[in-house]
Amino acid sequence: MLDSVLVWIEKNRRAWLDDLKQWLNIASVSAVSAHDNDTAAAAEWAMSYLRGVGLNVRRIATPRHPCVLATTPDDLCPPGAPTILFYGHYDVQPPEPLEKWISPPFTATVRDGKIYARGASDDKGQVFCHLAALMAWRQIAGEIPLRLMVLLEGEEEIGSINLADVIKDHVDELKTARVLIVSDSNQFAPGIPAITTGLRGLVYYQIELTAAAEDLHSGVYGGAVANPANVLTQMLGRLHDSQGRVAVDGFYDDVVLPEESIRRQWAELPFDENEFVRRLGVPQVSGEAGFSTLERRWCRPTLDINGLTSGYQGPGAKTVLPCSASAKVSMRLVPNQNPDRISTAFERCLAVLKPPGVRLTLTRLNATPAAVTQIDSPAITAAAAALEIGFGKSPVFMREGGSIPVVNWFKELLGIDSVLIGFGLPDDNLHAPNEKFDLNCLYSGIRTAAALYDRLGGI
Amino acid sequence: MLDSVLVWIEKNRRAWLDDLKQWLNIASVSAVSAHDNDTAAAAEWAMSYLRGVGLNVRRIATPRHPCVLATTPDDLCPPGAPTILFYGHYDVQPPEPLEKWISPPFTATVRDGKIYARGASDDKGQVFCHLAALMAWRQIAGEIPLRLMVLLEGEEEIGSINLADVIKDHVDELKTARVLIVSDSNQFAPGIPAITTGLRGLVYYQIELTAAAEDLHSGVYGGAVANPANVLTQMLGRLHDSQGRVAVDGFYDDVVLPEESIRRQWAELPFDENEFVRRLGVPQVSGEAGFSTLERRWCRPTLDINGLTSGYQGPGAKTVLPCSASAKVSMRLVPNQNPDRISTAFERCLAVLKPPGVRLTLTRLNATPAAVTQIDSPAITAAAAALEIGFGKSPVFMREGGSIPVVNWFKELLGIDSVLIGFGLPDDNLHAPNEKFDLNCLYSGIRTAAALYDRLGGI
Repeated sequence: MLDSVLVWIEKNRRAWLDDLKQWLNIASVSAVSAHDNDTAAAAEWAMSYLRGVGLNVRRIATPRHPCVLATTPDDLCPPGAPTILFYGHYDVQPPEPLEKWISPPFTATVRDGKIYARGASDDKGQVFCHLAALMAWRQIAGEIPLRLMVLLEGEEEIGSINLADVIKDHVDELKTARVLIVSDSNQFAPGIPAITTGLRGLVYYQIELTAAAEDLHSGVYGGAVANPANVLTQMLGRLHDSQGRVAVDGFYDDVVLPEESIRRQWAELPFDENEFVRRLGVPQVSGEAGFSTLERRWCRPTLDINGLTSGYQGPGAKTVLPCSASAKVSMRLVPNQNPDRISTAFERCLAVLKPPGVRLTLTRLNATPAAVTQIDSPAITAAAAALEIGFGKSPVFMREGGSIPVVNWFKELLGIDSVLIGFGLPDDNLHAPNEKFDLNCLYSGIRTAAALYDRLGGI
Repeated sequence: MLDSVLVWIEKNRRAWLDDLKQWLNIASVSAVSAHDNDTAAAAEWAMSYLRGVGLNVRRIATPRHPCVLATTPDDLCPPGAPTILFYGHYDVQPPEPLEKWISPPFTATVRDGKIYARGASDDKGQVFCHLAALMAWRQIAGEIPLRLMVLLEGEEEIGSINLADVIKDHVDELKTARVLIVSDSNQFAPGIPAITTGLRGLVYYQIELTAAAEDLHSGVYGGAVANPANVLTQMLGRLHDSQGRVAVDGFYDDVVLPEESIRRQWAELPFDENEFVRRLGVPQVSGEAGFSTLERRWCRPTLDINGLTSGYQGPGAKTVLPCSASAKVSMRLVPNQNPDRISTAFERCLAVLKPPGVRLTLTRLNATPAAVTQIDSPAITAAAAALEIGFGKSPVFMREGGSIPVVNWFKELLGIDSVLIGFGLPDDNLHAPNEKFDLNCLYSGIRTAAALYDRLGGI
């Protein structure tokens, strides 16, 4: 039966693409209230699609953006089929800076075999692979091979602020699942599909420094009162040492490195550093001394400034002494680092660095631990087989530098493990202008999802 | 005759205020091209007013904003009257951040005896004191007591980029002046008029750091490529030492401190540091160790960040690794520091601090040396007498932290000294939201200008 499903998937490429475009054109930017109607519309779009498959679909309201929960009716799957949970998100990152997009972020556009739009890869495009696979199974087999629950949220890009509550409110239902499937990660490289077995965590802060009540003339007052912009650079500029290590006391205390055997496997992956440098457009790689580029991304914690704002930012020279300066600063955490301990260490560090002439306000916007998953479970074996069917090649086991906080919550709240099976590519421009998803990845992803459901039906 | 002029000035308070409001309501922001028509209109307004006084008025075109040059016809001044040059500027700073203005920056509004508008004090309000005094002399005496040339420019806030050329083109005419009068500075404090005998210079840079071609996901790439925002803080954060001194090699090499006697005079000025702290809203004063607040502002060089820009600056958390980070950085110079030497030292310092993973672009936007003027000239004596008439109190001799670059050029190109006779107050919010000019200063300033022309007529 899977063979017929795969043939039908190939026959309907144009239809899948048209459907995905509709979803991508809905500007579901969860961080921006002005887009709340769009975010709601993107949820509705998914609900309608899932109803088309034949699932029972509920809209679960939250104080911000709704979740979608779809379950498989008894008559739509074989008796005794295993229960599996699929998680994805329908919200997207803000598209700014808009002027850097070649085609508008919410007018999905195909160029050179890729579809460009905000959310194309993160995560609508990857979620859609599963929706399409379900549709194909339903159309060809009249049923789907397993008792699937689909849970989609609309707040992943703003820290999944209500998802834990939603999981808790539906814990009896959700904990019937034997495993969690997530497609919100990448292949290792084009033609090298991968299963992701580890994710970094995230602690994110907004930092505000203020001094005078208003902006001042930098000639009249410069040198006599603290300049928050000067102070901000002095404080943040001390958060790394000369070896690229994070200079926050205790930051590395709990870090656990992967086993030597894993690091050796990674060293053998076909990673082309010259190509990496060329693709990103950087002068060279750069980072913590003593670690490879893959290790720096996969198993080392970081501290990065995500935004800086102060004073005059327009054209030309304005001789202003800014009254405030702010920064967004985030830390990526690795396994065994505790977000609260790291937060405490970070806040203490800034309090020590702060001179007396300014006021400091710290707001924590996010705190998620890292995640690692097992490699040798039946579900991972099924996923590996599915990737081989979908992409024609057996996958490698890798980690990912980004975070999928919910993976931790599902483990904590439901006690289930995750299978992170990503269809994206490293150059998909996630969270950046010109985000894209290769059509090749889209169609291989749909095939893989179809095969995965087939294989998981037998575990 | 002066007495009659002063009486008439008092009688016409309402008219002066109405005239000044008209000028202030013209948004002559020289830095922003969208305001070019406004800037031209502000020049026209001044020309029309000067024609009303009876002067011969010319519009001198430049590649950017025009100068206004008005001269006194023979029949409008006594035979043998001395030739004096008055300089001012009709352009203003950008008004941003707009949301911090209580009344709109280009709708001049009187509250509590003060007129609020961008340019109220810097410099339209102060220039207007002179225009009004000329009008008063003409109305009451039928002539003005000296052969005055009025030169107004529209590019002071963007570095007076064409003024030197204008001076050179009219050097024969302008060099007939015996002294330059400038009102673009402050009184020492309310009720304490002052003559400013020194100004700091300015070197201003735009700094750009770039790494990747586009913004990247901070999870996927964080730790493996340079983050320009991190690097910017590391570089700029090292430009001061722990004593608040500028940590640029050679920065202090040429600094000349004022004589001990001058520093003692300053120490005796009625400067209330608690009031200063309270007025500015800062937690405390702050700056270079070993110097008083007045010294830090008047005779010590500084380095200040005027603006910072990088990455995501909107609400909430965006996990972006910015592809660029930029800053506006300026240095205030004191007598004997050479702007070109300081520029070279600064550029060398940043080149040394720059790590290999980023690209650095430096653009110098301004370079002006400091200025000091003599205290015991006939013109300064006349100015002191005029301030005593206008404000009812003899002035103190102070310095000013800001720059009036043109003062140097008039000295270099015409060989004439300046009299800096300012009517503003230290809390006028120059270059900041809610710029204002006390009506008391306005009327005292008009009286002072009228008296100054009387006294200068006799030197």
